[in-house]
Amino acid sequence: MFKTYLENVRKEIPLIHNITNYVTVNDCANIILACGASPIMADDEEEVEEITSICDGLNINIGTLNKRTINSMFMAGKKANEKGNTVVLDPVGIGASKLRRKTVENLLEKVKINVICGNISEIKAIFTENGTTKGVDANIYDEITEDNIEDIVVFAKKCAKKVNSIIAITGLIDVVTDGEKAYCIYNGNKMMAKVTGTGCQLSALIASFIAGNKKNQLEATFVAVCCMGLAGEIAYKRLNVFDGNSSYRNYIIDAIYNLKAEDLEKGARYEIR
Amino acid sequence: MFKTYLENVRKEIPLIHNITNYVTVNDCANIILACGASPIMADDEEEVEEITSICDGLNINIGTLNKRTINSMFMAGKKANEKGNTVVLDPVGIGASKLRRKTVENLLEKVKINVICGNISEIKAIFTENGTTKGVDANIYDEITEDNIEDIVVFAKKCAKKVNSIIAITGLIDVVTDGEKAYCIYNGNKMMAKVTGTGCQLSALIASFIAGNKKNQLEATFVAVCCMGLAGEIAYKRLNVFDGNSSYRNYIIDAIYNLKAEDLEKGARYEIR
Amino acid sequence: MFKTYLENVRKEIPLIHNITNYVTVNDCANIILACGASPIMADDEEEVEEITSICDGLNINIGTLNKRTINSMFMAGKKANEKGNTVVLDPVGIGASKLRRKTVENLLEKVKINVICGNISEIKAIFTENGTTKGVDANIYDEITEDNIEDIVVFAKKCAKKVNSIIAITGLIDVVTDGEKAYCIYNGNKMMAKVTGTGCQLSALIASFIAGNKKNQLEATFVAVCCMGLAGEIAYKRLNVFDGNSSYRNYIIDAIYNLKAEDLEKGARYEIR
Repeated sequence: MFKTYLENVRKEIPLIHNITNYVTVNDCANIILACGASPIMADDEEEVEEITSICDGLNINIGTLNKRTINSMFMAGKKANEKGNTVVLDPVGIGASKLRRKTVENLLEKVKINVICGNISEIKAIFTENGTTKGVDANIYDEITEDNIEDIVVFAKKCAKKVNSIIAITGLIDVVTDGEKAYCIYNGNKMMAKVTGTGCQLSALIASFIAGNKKNQLEATFVAVCCMGLAGEIAYKRLNVFDGNSSYRNYIIDAIYNLKAEDLEKGARYEIR
Repeated sequence: MFKTYLENVRKEIPLIHNITNYVTVNDCANIILACGASPIMADDEEEVEEITSICDGLNINIGTLNKRTINSMFMAGKKANEKGNTVVLDPVGIGASKLRRKTVENLLEKVKINVICGNISEIKAIFTENGTTKGVDANIYDEITEDNIEDIVVFAKKCAKKVNSIIAITGLIDVVTDGEKAYCIYNGNKMMAKVTGTGCQLSALIASFIAGNKKNQLEATFVAVCCMGLAGEIAYKRLNVFDGNSSYRNYIIDAIYNLKAEDLEKGARYEIR
Repeated sequence: MFKTYLENVRKEIPLIHNITNYVTVNDCANIILACGASPIMADDEEEVEEITSICDGLNINIGTLNKRTINSMFMAGKKANEKGNTVVLDPVGIGASKLRRKTVENLLEKVKINVICGNISEIKAIFTENGTTKGVDANIYDEITEDNIEDIVVFAKKCAKKVNSIIAITGLIDVVTDGEKAYCIYNGNKMMAKVTGTGCQLSALIASFIAGNKKNQLEATFVAVCCMGLAGEIAYKRLNVFDGNSSYRNYIIDAIYNLKAEDLEKGARYEIR
């Protein structure tokens, strides 16, 4: 199964339109290239519709969102809907401001979002009244562990049904669900939280995998999450005594670049709930 | 002494709000994570006050400043003042344009700035009429050496008193002073000037260290400067024959990530004047 | 010959003004530093003319172009013309939107552009009606190979004459021409296409080399293209079994940093047509 998903991305070389933050944009471009897809970044109202039209998928990320680009997100989103392209939404730091919250709410109302990808604090901030936040990182009281995984799955399924989107929640355990079926993924390494933008990179990866595997969006999302987690593990094993989070950042992208289907078949650790 | 400062940052995990340039923003985020703090980047007028309100420190950097974000710097600065949070200002390339100079002057007038961190050319451009500039780098005639260190310390103390801020001047020798006490730091490596944004990274680090050590701002700034310089030395020792400024960039951030209090106790080279 | 060009950049330390995209801007800054020049990024209308005035060269790159910065490109371009400084234009993804196409057309009309540097799809999109595009990458049907190199050279010379600029076309084989003389450069590695922004980096390098060698613009451009290609080869040889496109990105910049004239004399593979 993994093999086909990986190969499809590399064979199709889908073009991914990213409207994203200026903090982690370079890493997003490089991880899209690493997995076999091709990135284009464009955020001006005067060109986003046209750009989305030649692309195979759209990745919207609200980190460093601003007046100039918010409307572009809506324009690109609607155009992607028209074309039948997947739209991935990463609600970075949504709990941190009304502007972010309002933008996400409006996007969910006016654009058909295929996948929402965020940490548990961000997903809670969208769907509950009492979402807490610690900036762009998950609140420490919001960890997903073996102890609360069942509750999280129930919550994620409810969210997915409510907005009719795939929900991908990242954390020590990741959860991917369309409301019916839930994949719990045990891959990854906690050091990934020490690299800025691993979440942004995952959203870019999901957009790439879905664009290359349009008929199986849930599985494509699940495979992308496994790839990212496994890359985090492979990269962690590479670390020498002097390496820190900056080298780790490079090694994660490198691991996506070199990822083989066999590694994924062997290394993916997940269960279906 | 160093031990406590390092540990406090790692224990408190202060959240740092950055309004900064799009050139070195990713490195700033990663070095903030490396030292144990947590970064958030936000620059839109509609959200900066709210973001600053949930943060523990504010880092304003005028590289690539522009119409859209200048007002955000003032709004965030005032809010940080209200909240009693530290504001660090990095006057990147201030000598290069009236817009940069005017923005810094206005910021100094309307916002209580706790630390101004820049190279000697930038600090001269703020406080004297004849500041020269070589873009964002220090003018070669502006080097701080054993020969002129005494004059520089006198100058730095005068500047600090004038604006009632801590002044951190970076160079071959770094000077940190609150107007009364001056630390001269001999750590660092001249290759750091070949990596874009090591100055920006230092400002982000200072904001993190002060946010984690609010009661001792001068010492927190001094410790941050030692960390950066020592990281530059450790990273330099790691370089192999093929490594250049790009790998060096990664190694510096890695060194901050791995920095131990003992390394700092042993490695910090400074005097008080 | 190569020796002088390299040494001049390192000796002159030309200051390069970049108005460029936020995706690859950090790599552009680091490669400018790596070759011995000094970068400054500035894109606001209120300061670009002043910044250009203190610089030795201007690099305009239309990736992520937007309302806020388009006029800045014209203002800076005209000022650079006035000052007699070189202007390099990188028409990133020009085929992808009318906004990009229109901006490039207007720039070519109103600003004297010294070098246009792009992949073959981008150059075709400027000069022919039937330019195809695959986002920011060259269309796969647009490769430059031994089979079509003669036609490409003829085409490139015609383009160069039409706009009275040097044309640098990147691909498996690179072509640099002023309309009379054409250099075909065989250096490089196809993995460079898997790193975002190697094209942007080359444009920044060309601006640096011309600014350091103002009297020989064609040769300076040619030498910059050789440097980039050779750096791609040297970096490729460094790759270990775990390294992917992210480490490769670092190694390319590192290779520019360490590049010796002898390496270039020995390693440059080119012919004149």
